[in-house]
Amino acid sequence: MAVNLYIPSDDAVFPVPGVEIGVTEAGIRKADRRDLTVFRFSAGSSVAGVFTRNRFCAAPVVVCQQHLASGKDIRAMVINTGNANAGTGEPGMQAAYQTCDALAKLLGLDSKQILPFSTGVILEPLPVDRIEAGLPAAIKNLSPNNWVSAAHGIMTTDTLPKIHSQRVSIGGKTITITGISKGAGMIRPNMATMLSYLATDAGIAQSLLTGLARELADVSFNRITVDGDTSTNDSFIVIATGQSGLTIDSTSHPHYAELKAALAAAATDLAQKIVRDAEGATKFMTIKVEQAKTSEEALLVAYAVAHSPLVKTAFFASDPNLGRILAAIGYAGITDLDVAGVNLWLGDVLVAKQGGRNPDYQESDGQRVMKEPEILVRIALGRGNITETVYTCDFSHEYVSINADYRS
Amino acid sequence: MAVNLYIPSDDAVFPVPGVEIGVTEAGIRKADRRDLTVFRFSAGSSVAGVFTRNRFCAAPVVVCQQHLASGKDIRAMVINTGNANAGTGEPGMQAAYQTCDALAKLLGLDSKQILPFSTGVILEPLPVDRIEAGLPAAIKNLSPNNWVSAAHGIMTTDTLPKIHSQRVSIGGKTITITGISKGAGMIRPNMATMLSYLATDAGIAQSLLTGLARELADVSFNRITVDGDTSTNDSFIVIATGQSGLTIDSTSHPHYAELKAALAAAATDLAQKIVRDAEGATKFMTIKVEQAKTSEEALLVAYAVAHSPLVKTAFFASDPNLGRILAAIGYAGITDLDVAGVNLWLGDVLVAKQGGRNPDYQESDGQRVMKEPEILVRIALGRGNITETVYTCDFSHEYVSINADYRS
Repeated sequence: MAVNLYIPSDDAVFPVPGVEIGVTEAGIRKADRRDLTVFRFSAGSSVAGVFTRNRFCAAPVVVCQQHLASGKDIRAMVINTGNANAGTGEPGMQAAYQTCDALAKLLGLDSKQILPFSTGVILEPLPVDRIEAGLPAAIKNLSPNNWVSAAHGIMTTDTLPKIHSQRVSIGGKTITITGISKGAGMIRPNMATMLSYLATDAGIAQSLLTGLARELADVSFNRITVDGDTSTNDSFIVIATGQSGLTIDSTSHPHYAELKAALAAAATDLAQKIVRDAEGATKFMTIKVEQAKTSEEALLVAYAVAHSPLVKTAFFASDPNLGRILAAIGYAGITDLDVAGVNLWLGDVLVAKQGGRNPDYQESDGQRVMKEPEILVRIALGRGNITETVYTCDFSHEYVSINADYRS
Repeated sequence: MAVNLYIPSDDAVFPVPGVEIGVTEAGIRKADRRDLTVFRFSAGSSVAGVFTRNRFCAAPVVVCQQHLASGKDIRAMVINTGNANAGTGEPGMQAAYQTCDALAKLLGLDSKQILPFSTGVILEPLPVDRIEAGLPAAIKNLSPNNWVSAAHGIMTTDTLPKIHSQRVSIGGKTITITGISKGAGMIRPNMATMLSYLATDAGIAQSLLTGLARELADVSFNRITVDGDTSTNDSFIVIATGQSGLTIDSTSHPHYAELKAALAAAATDLAQKIVRDAEGATKFMTIKVEQAKTSEEALLVAYAVAHSPLVKTAFFASDPNLGRILAAIGYAGITDLDVAGVNLWLGDVLVAKQGGRNPDYQESDGQRVMKEPEILVRIALGRGNITETVYTCDFSHEYVSINADYRS
């Protein structure tokens, strides 16, 4: 049911010099599926991460933050699906350390040079023995050309792998940017998303990369929502290997803006791919709120509309029951909103004008837009000049089926 | 699909002396259904209301507030279904005034003595001509015994009428308390619910009743949620006719507490009946949050759990996928929550202990509780001594079907 989500052909997925990937089947939850992925980075790579703010954040998220803060160069990552290692208390922490220890020993690294990630069911013990047993096969599989395989290896309820890859010329150098993401439910990232890994062979100073990763998250993964549920395991990792010969060491570097724009485009594409493949999605909706006083109030309105089950089911039905959008704007939390200043467009159709139904609005025009797979909902609040955009999807029978059956 | 929602037999629905009700079919949206209801109150009745805080509140809600503030005795109400008269701008205001004028003329009252209510589709013009044409038949039907008929007359996507009726002895007088409510979707009342009318023949001074109505709403309608969508038309009205001979004129009256408790029990029952008949509901869930520092943070957690589509679909499936509840607690917004202090019970089963899985927890125990139609989710935050309780329901295929088809 994915909405306009395309997988690039193998020859359009560019390996990133300095990044090797190995994937295997470790039988963590189910047999016969790729569920264990290892990344190895060349010496001199910079790595930065942005993580969930869920207070029940998973053990591997805690360990990632410890290892990134340790000052050691990050040289490898290990990712399992089938189990989130969240809500698992102290035994979960030990399982995450044990996973890092095992990989460090096999790769000849310090345990703190490893970042661990888990995704899957919450509240169940991580089968760390199966991960340990699977690691040698994953390492044997290490190759620069395994991005597509890794995109498969990190999937849970995703129906399709999510890959972004591009080559750009910056400062006379050819720079490669390739990334993958996963996630289809429990998606309303708060400072990061389920799992996404974005690598480039540009060099970016570590001090710069940490702030940049957060800026990239803020324009991409922090602007998508499927169901309003912020995961316990959200992680977004940016890797800069420097193998291209271009190295950016400060925000005043002549090519910083160019590289940042290319990385932001990649991060946004990977975030939107999560929405396109959201659980049960049949429509991709862009909620654009204009003329707000502040970014905060624009996002209040955008998320109220994006999370309303009534709005989402109306889009599923292609039914222009647009009063539901007005209701969501009204309860979003702007207590001094003057509804007489509010205009609402569906695509190019002006539906509500100055807070009431546009006298020229024809139901058939609304219907026409609602039938499209990609829909723009544009709301002008008439209060200021700030704009914010959020991406979401509709709410279908399939969403209920998937989430009623997830563990079965 | 209503969950343990029973309709009292006719002889258990006690008329309230001083209240007459007339119901008719006015063909407002569809033919052959009761869609227009008129209430008339005896002289000397006190009437107070609590209304939605949605900024896109409906025209009749604005008019109700104007008429209640005018100082005139409220003597009648008129309620139509099929059209919410919301998002209708100035023409909607005129339609609400015109409705009051028409009823006032027929009953020999001032227009300001009428409260108008509408419920149904948003953003469509109110067919006020059909309301005017239907009023004489509604008035001809006026009788003290029409409470059940009125409960039918105000239904939209409700599957069953919602009625509460009791007789209590207070201060040697027999006091009757009878009320009705409606609503099944777009339910997350903020200071009131869709529509509910609660009448008693106790006398309550007007100055007292206004504050009391808000207190009653805060323990009943403001503690239920179906889909997190706050309606444009929420209204809760309390009528005290005084015909019983018992009159309460201050909070220090010896029988005030007793009468308030009886009214609160009635309001809570009417609110819970809305959840029991929520769109597509198969389970009635009580979310009780204990050991919070403040009421605000207890409600943050309770509503995060109650609104999570992932939690709601897991309950629909009777699948004890309880990590989803931990995830919701974690993202609810308590930024300094120490998860090691959190315990979670499902019914009598301790699922999570000190932030992790209870080592003694058996999946079969969780399964047993999940299969019940009424489920208690109890969360202890380990931070303080405040408790708050919210009532909600699960999220089923039927919810999607109902809301994808509502206008068809």
